[in-house]
Amino acid sequence: MRDIAVFTGSAHPELAEEICAHLGVPLSPSRVSRFANDCLEVQLQGNCRERDVFLVQPLVAPVQEHLVELLLMCDAARGASAGRITVVMPHYSYARSDKKDAPRISIGGRLVADLLVSAGAGRVLTMTLHSPQVHGFFSVPVDHLHALRELAAHFRQYDLSRTTVVSPDLGNAKEAAAFARMIGAQVAAGAKQRFADDRVSISSVIGEVAGRDVIVLDDEIAKGSTVLELLQRLRELGPRSIRVACTHGLFAAGALKRLGEQPDVLEIVCTNTVPVPVEERTEKLRVLSIAPAFAEAVRRIHNGESVSALFDALPGH
Amino acid sequence: MRDIAVFTGSAHPELAEEICAHLGVPLSPSRVSRFANDCLEVQLQGNCRERDVFLVQPLVAPVQEHLVELLLMCDAARGASAGRITVVMPHYSYARSDKKDAPRISIGGRLVADLLVSAGAGRVLTMTLHSPQVHGFFSVPVDHLHALRELAAHFRQYDLSRTTVVSPDLGNAKEAAAFARMIGAQVAAGAKQRFADDRVSISSVIGEVAGRDVIVLDDEIAKGSTVLELLQRLRELGPRSIRVACTHGLFAAGALKRLGEQPDVLEIVCTNTVPVPVEERTEKLRVLSIAPAFAEAVRRIHNGESVSALFDALPGH
Amino acid sequence: MRDIAVFTGSAHPELAEEICAHLGVPLSPSRVSRFANDCLEVQLQGNCRERDVFLVQPLVAPVQEHLVELLLMCDAARGASAGRITVVMPHYSYARSDKKDAPRISIGGRLVADLLVSAGAGRVLTMTLHSPQVHGFFSVPVDHLHALRELAAHFRQYDLSRTTVVSPDLGNAKEAAAFARMIGAQVAAGAKQRFADDRVSISSVIGEVAGRDVIVLDDEIAKGSTVLELLQRLRELGPRSIRVACTHGLFAAGALKRLGEQPDVLEIVCTNTVPVPVEERTEKLRVLSIAPAFAEAVRRIHNGESVSALFDALPGH
Amino acid sequence: MRDIAVFTGSAHPELAEEICAHLGVPLSPSRVSRFANDCLEVQLQGNCRERDVFLVQPLVAPVQEHLVELLLMCDAARGASAGRITVVMPHYSYARSDKKDAPRISIGGRLVADLLVSAGAGRVLTMTLHSPQVHGFFSVPVDHLHALRELAAHFRQYDLSRTTVVSPDLGNAKEAAAFARMIGAQVAAGAKQRFADDRVSISSVIGEVAGRDVIVLDDEIAKGSTVLELLQRLRELGPRSIRVACTHGLFAAGALKRLGEQPDVLEIVCTNTVPVPVEERTEKLRVLSIAPAFAEAVRRIHNGESVSALFDALPGH
Amino acid sequence: MRDIAVFTGSAHPELAEEICAHLGVPLSPSRVSRFANDCLEVQLQGNCRERDVFLVQPLVAPVQEHLVELLLMCDAARGASAGRITVVMPHYSYARSDKKDAPRISIGGRLVADLLVSAGAGRVLTMTLHSPQVHGFFSVPVDHLHALRELAAHFRQYDLSRTTVVSPDLGNAKEAAAFARMIGAQVAAGAKQRFADDRVSISSVIGEVAGRDVIVLDDEIAKGSTVLELLQRLRELGPRSIRVACTHGLFAAGALKRLGEQPDVLEIVCTNTVPVPVEERTEKLRVLSIAPAFAEAVRRIHNGESVSALFDALPGH
Amino acid sequence: MRDIAVFTGSAHPELAEEICAHLGVPLSPSRVSRFANDCLEVQLQGNCRERDVFLVQPLVAPVQEHLVELLLMCDAARGASAGRITVVMPHYSYARSDKKDAPRISIGGRLVADLLVSAGAGRVLTMTLHSPQVHGFFSVPVDHLHALRELAAHFRQYDLSRTTVVSPDLGNAKEAAAFARMIGAQVAAGAKQRFADDRVSISSVIGEVAGRDVIVLDDEIAKGSTVLELLQRLRELGPRSIRVACTHGLFAAGALKRLGEQPDVLEIVCTNTVPVPVEERTEKLRVLSIAPAFAEAVRRIHNGESVSALFDALPGH
Repeated sequence: MRDIAVFTGSAHPELAEEICAHLGVPLSPSRVSRFANDCLEVQLQGNCRERDVFLVQPLVAPVQEHLVELLLMCDAARGASAGRITVVMPHYSYARSDKKDAPRISIGGRLVADLLVSAGAGRVLTMTLHSPQVHGFFSVPVDHLHALRELAAHFRQYDLSRTTVVSPDLGNAKEAAAFARMIGAQVAAGAKQRFADDRVSISSVIGEVAGRDVIVLDDEIAKGSTVLELLQRLRELGPRSIRVACTHGLFAAGALKRLGEQPDVLEIVCTNTVPVPVEERTEKLRVLSIAPAFAEAVRRIHNGESVSALFDALPGH
Repeated sequence: MRDIAVFTGSAHPELAEEICAHLGVPLSPSRVSRFANDCLEVQLQGNCRERDVFLVQPLVAPVQEHLVELLLMCDAARGASAGRITVVMPHYSYARSDKKDAPRISIGGRLVADLLVSAGAGRVLTMTLHSPQVHGFFSVPVDHLHALRELAAHFRQYDLSRTTVVSPDLGNAKEAAAFARMIGAQVAAGAKQRFADDRVSISSVIGEVAGRDVIVLDDEIAKGSTVLELLQRLRELGPRSIRVACTHGLFAAGALKRLGEQPDVLEIVCTNTVPVPVEERTEKLRVLSIAPAFAEAVRRIHNGESVSALFDALPGH
Repeated sequence: MRDIAVFTGSAHPELAEEICAHLGVPLSPSRVSRFANDCLEVQLQGNCRERDVFLVQPLVAPVQEHLVELLLMCDAARGASAGRITVVMPHYSYARSDKKDAPRISIGGRLVADLLVSAGAGRVLTMTLHSPQVHGFFSVPVDHLHALRELAAHFRQYDLSRTTVVSPDLGNAKEAAAFARMIGAQVAAGAKQRFADDRVSISSVIGEVAGRDVIVLDDEIAKGSTVLELLQRLRELGPRSIRVACTHGLFAAGALKRLGEQPDVLEIVCTNTVPVPVEERTEKLRVLSIAPAFAEAVRRIHNGESVSALFDALPGH
Repeated sequence: MRDIAVFTGSAHPELAEEICAHLGVPLSPSRVSRFANDCLEVQLQGNCRERDVFLVQPLVAPVQEHLVELLLMCDAARGASAGRITVVMPHYSYARSDKKDAPRISIGGRLVADLLVSAGAGRVLTMTLHSPQVHGFFSVPVDHLHALRELAAHFRQYDLSRTTVVSPDLGNAKEAAAFARMIGAQVAAGAKQRFADDRVSISSVIGEVAGRDVIVLDDEIAKGSTVLELLQRLRELGPRSIRVACTHGLFAAGALKRLGEQPDVLEIVCTNTVPVPVEERTEKLRVLSIAPAFAEAVRRIHNGESVSALFDALPGH
Repeated sequence: MRDIAVFTGSAHPELAEEICAHLGVPLSPSRVSRFANDCLEVQLQGNCRERDVFLVQPLVAPVQEHLVELLLMCDAARGASAGRITVVMPHYSYARSDKKDAPRISIGGRLVADLLVSAGAGRVLTMTLHSPQVHGFFSVPVDHLHALRELAAHFRQYDLSRTTVVSPDLGNAKEAAAFARMIGAQVAAGAKQRFADDRVSISSVIGEVAGRDVIVLDDEIAKGSTVLELLQRLRELGPRSIRVACTHGLFAAGALKRLGEQPDVLEIVCTNTVPVPVEERTEKLRVLSIAPAFAEAVRRIHNGESVSALFDALPGH
Repeated sequence: MRDIAVFTGSAHPELAEEICAHLGVPLSPSRVSRFANDCLEVQLQGNCRERDVFLVQPLVAPVQEHLVELLLMCDAARGASAGRITVVMPHYSYARSDKKDAPRISIGGRLVADLLVSAGAGRVLTMTLHSPQVHGFFSVPVDHLHALRELAAHFRQYDLSRTTVVSPDLGNAKEAAAFARMIGAQVAAGAKQRFADDRVSISSVIGEVAGRDVIVLDDEIAKGSTVLELLQRLRELGPRSIRVACTHGLFAAGALKRLGEQPDVLEIVCTNTVPVPVEERTEKLRVLSIAPAFAEAVRRIHNGESVSALFDALPGH
């Protein structure tokens, strides 16, 4: 295997640049053209032949544009005789379509995994999939990172002696529990209730909250309604302070503004798996960079070193 | 598509017989031979050519024997020009291997799905997969039944006015909630806690239990340790009565005996997706037959009628 | 094979409705949802099981949205046990990406063909591919219609005795020649010249134009620059009248307005493979319906009758 | 990747020898046996294990023999654990079967591409495909060379100040135009006309021919009828001199003799992608060697250097 | 599945005609064209859409021509939307390349099986494969007929009371033994010896030959050297009469003439799986028709009836 | 390709240890867990990333357990980004299921080959397949060793001047003949006879046995009935001494004891492709190690050196 060649799609070039800076390799140029008929064409503008090619593209809005662009990039790299093609997909949004909970729907998480392989992807590097089973949707090797290390490093600047990490969903509290252990905190969780009409609401919070410094932790925040609902329950229990954290800060439909307007929310922390437009950023927002982690994973993948050895802190990842 | 041909492996011939009886078609004979070198050979002893072939085999212990036998059956049916091959797998035990929670392990649930397709399976009919995402491991159509209808019919013989359905795992309480709705009961759940050493224990029960008639409901009971632990928590809350129910009654390692010896457990209810040896059966055990449901699903699959229409009671199935 | 089930994506529901009307079958309902994270989910809301499923979706702008939607529809139909899945794609825009004329670019026409098959498409019904070789990009059977019959029927209302059909590109004049034969007209063509800087321009027109009633015919009109350039050349030759016709009326970037404003263009004729927004339609525009042709092709595909027998007028189709 | 191993089939061993001489590696021996039942067996008689294997075989007459031989060579190399298998196919005759211009015919260009991949080919190195879309028929990377550099070097020995390059087919004049640019000449083209009975003839020549030194350039000359017809049209226009050139000199059915007998044809130039039997060679024939170009491409493929960088003179390649 | 459509390649149209006559269906016309560049094109000239298509082509000399033709036929049928494609290959000559008995050779029997599937073959109907393991080379269902019934019917015209069936190869005497049982005869076999230089010769004959009416039976006769050698051994043992029989009468390199010239060989019997040119036929030759057997197999395949039921006389077939 | 990583399943860890000792590399640890529901999970406990991974597992009893374990190991290695996965399967028991000698049976030898590839196996290293055609069942490269060198070295300790090697089956005597050549001995063989009821028995022995030192050689001994029968025939011919040898000593159903009890059998020789339990070993048993041969083959595979060069003594291997 010869040199690394890293390309970026148009979804998050800043992150690709940052990963390359940490790797100490230049970001190879690429070009996306849109024809009069709205079709895309991608040209990778650096030699791929026998190179270890990494294509950086989180599947963020506009998701369909970015997905097709990524598929075209895979195909271009394959046609250009890439030695190996690794899709670096810090956020895999289609992972949420992971089951068939209604008749005759697509399981998008599996379909998109198949499409990537069909287009030439030989491996995938991603972060915090919505459910761990989605790993099994891919027929190629997946390296599945998490951002707990980065989140922990951030929160360690505070006094954590009276901290409780709260997962909005008790059924999915594994990550929150692992994070709590990492920072020596307690864990709590919202108990979701599903009603007859399929509405879900958080009916209670299990664990010690009163007088504690609360960190609400979720894998992603999109519209933010779950977190807002959880905040209501938490307030009833009298926490000392509230901070909100997630890996994937999608912040759709004004979520960031709405969360930021909650007076008792001191801080909103996310990572840069998803680009947050500068104009939407608020004073309360802290964006942690996962570029060093991705750079280190890319380096290890390229060198054939163990990636799991690096990220063994979290059971289940 | 011509006539149905139903074959059974050696895992659960009684169930296959019963499905056939409900369908009104004979169970086609098959033969499994074991050679001196311990290899298996399967012969399907009825014409498969252009038939709509159904192969009944839950993956129960000895799992590896039954799995290879099933793969050989698929291959034999394919080689014999079956028109379509549907694997009827009432219990898919490998579904529990659904994620990579340690480095360098196999995701058995995905691998076995691929092996079945590789051996010729064209579709799968199964019941109550351990997690709904496992559906997405299959690259062929899956019909995913549940047994709530049968369980509800059984419990409706009792006065259900003060009943609470308890899920051992709040994170997986969707099925219990659906079941509670079906029988007009309340729902409660054990809150599992995972410790630093990866041990899991049930720390509390959320929901109304005191003075209630409790039905503990889980998807499967293997060693039964989770249920036994839940029973301890429940007793502290003073229920009026306790019954235990599950879809897949694996009852490994003396679980049935141990559960049956709990004096306050009035009844243990499971279905016949998994054969329960006559000698292990106790007075408290009730085995409900899901053969009629499977027969109806087979009939609909054969006739091209909607299967989802039949099982729409449960969200998520 | 049982009943037909026709579904439409959101690209051109009017066409799907019209095809169904001609077939005498109802358009089965479907639902496209967009989640907060911008991912799509498709639900086919009619039984697909063993049905002969037809999914109508031309790949028109926004192309990437419609493509992913179509892939999800294929996957949903496959997961719902469709007997056969035919993609009805009246306009295949990615067919223009049919060769590698620069290093390290994707051949989108081949990639998208593979993606469709990977998602479950079992056959394709399309119209007037940009180059006939694109047919060979598909690994599943393709029925390739043309619209010359419809165009001919339209123009036969005029006196065609002094008519010349002009192809903008002599290198691609096969269709124009066939059309001219159909209506008993002469044929002419613009001679394109490619310059050192890769610009292309029409330098002359070969064939009899002076004093003739000209019908300019192209497979598609996107930005319209080629046609506008051809019109300039034609005017120098003194035609008696000018009409413009094409199969795929994409009319991007104000092309329809610009063409309509040419005072000597009496009429612009296209078909409804691509939806033309009502607000962009002008008095000069005539949109011919290819719904009857598609309905007839669908009927023949469903019944196993020869489709080529129907469309044998055009050599090369 | 370890050493190169180059093998030749029986189609054109001289070319393989010459490529090897330029590469400075020995041609590895191979053996083709024909059994009494007319089946072939190929043995590669040099170690292939982990080697970078190149199999040289243009698909020339007898095409079917050479194709099956090549497929057997691919399979033998795969079974012998070749590290990578590149098919070096200087002439891909089946590329002419690139569309479905009659009902129920095979698209041989796509089929043979699939067969090669099915037999183990991992990449293809070829020259001047009949249409550029054929590139997209392959699901493995293709390096697509052209011979314009060699042709230009040859013609630069003459005074080119009054030269016109003539393409027999205006619809396919891209290569002639590129060649004209390379040697600073003008370009012209024959305008083909297709008649109702599907006959095609050249009706006129577009561009300046009178008093010019004409080089007729086509991708291949098989029976030569098109060129002979073009010569007739050219003569009517009074050129100063005529030379004929092509990449693939198939010269079937006495074409070479017939062309050589045209008194005004000064020279016939082709390359050695196709072997020209010594006994058919005439005084007017010049065979240019493309072995250096293929050797350089093989060297670059082996070393992972850019091949497109080498051949960027021609748009579309 | 709708009507049968039977097509023939150019290898053995008489057999295809005869099979059709027995089936009572017309042989659908097809056309094979050879282009100037020696490439083939096949057109199936009858509707294939949703038809149950049978393509008749034994792989006889010129094998490579007939193989490529057959692959093109498969591809044409697939592209024409055949409902199912069955290759009827009465003689599969590549079956002799069934093992890797030298380094770096192809296993042609497996390769050609894969090529057929890659070209679209969905099932295979063949007769008397050289070794039964070749069945396993195909990834699609194979129906494997034998000709013993036809051979037995022929020999029953004689007094069989003192008959011995002799297999040239004791290691492959299963078929001879089955045949002997069918006609109530004894069995004997030549014992082959392989020498250090890999030559093989028949050193002795095991079984009763003296004074017996001998029928030498082999699966195929190509050059006939094995049979000639066996005849020498047999003569030393004093048989009363000698007849020679085989399924596949390839008769290469003058074998028929040479065998016919043996004065003590009374009769040479083969079937018409392979066409025997009229000019090579001798008085001693009897060609039995297996067309009725193939017609019956085709009928059963089409109707989904058991084919094995028909041919159960021979263990191992 | 980086370092070798050798893992063993639970079938024969001693052999894996021994191979590693000869290679001078440590055996990487692995862990097999069995869950309460009898499903297996394999964890490879050494870095596989880009490593040249070898998985040692003969398919010996319990075959199904060992097969599924091996499939899980392949999948784990693939998921862990192994550079290449070679299955080292010293005994491939399913090779005996190599043909379809009854209707509607599986061809297990082909199926298991496909399953291994489906699970991620990229190449196979095995020894003495039951029939050489089984090689062709694999779609990945196979290195096929034999143990004749080891057997010859053992027997050369004796005076071999009056030795005859006897194959139980004349039809499969190729290996015995090669072995006889290697040790300068004569060859003989039992002539098997198959009766009408499909029973097989050895009716005679061809070759010189009287007064000779006999070595009975077979590829494998399972129940040993064939050898016992052969011994009876041999005794009738008065050999001077008898020894029994095989490659795969399965010794099922007390075969070792039964053979050892034959007073005139001086020695039973096998290799360690299959583990022989210490408690079953008798004084007469000699187990030769093929670990050095496998180690050398692994070394050559890893280094890309010719393996066939090493094992060219035996025609057909």
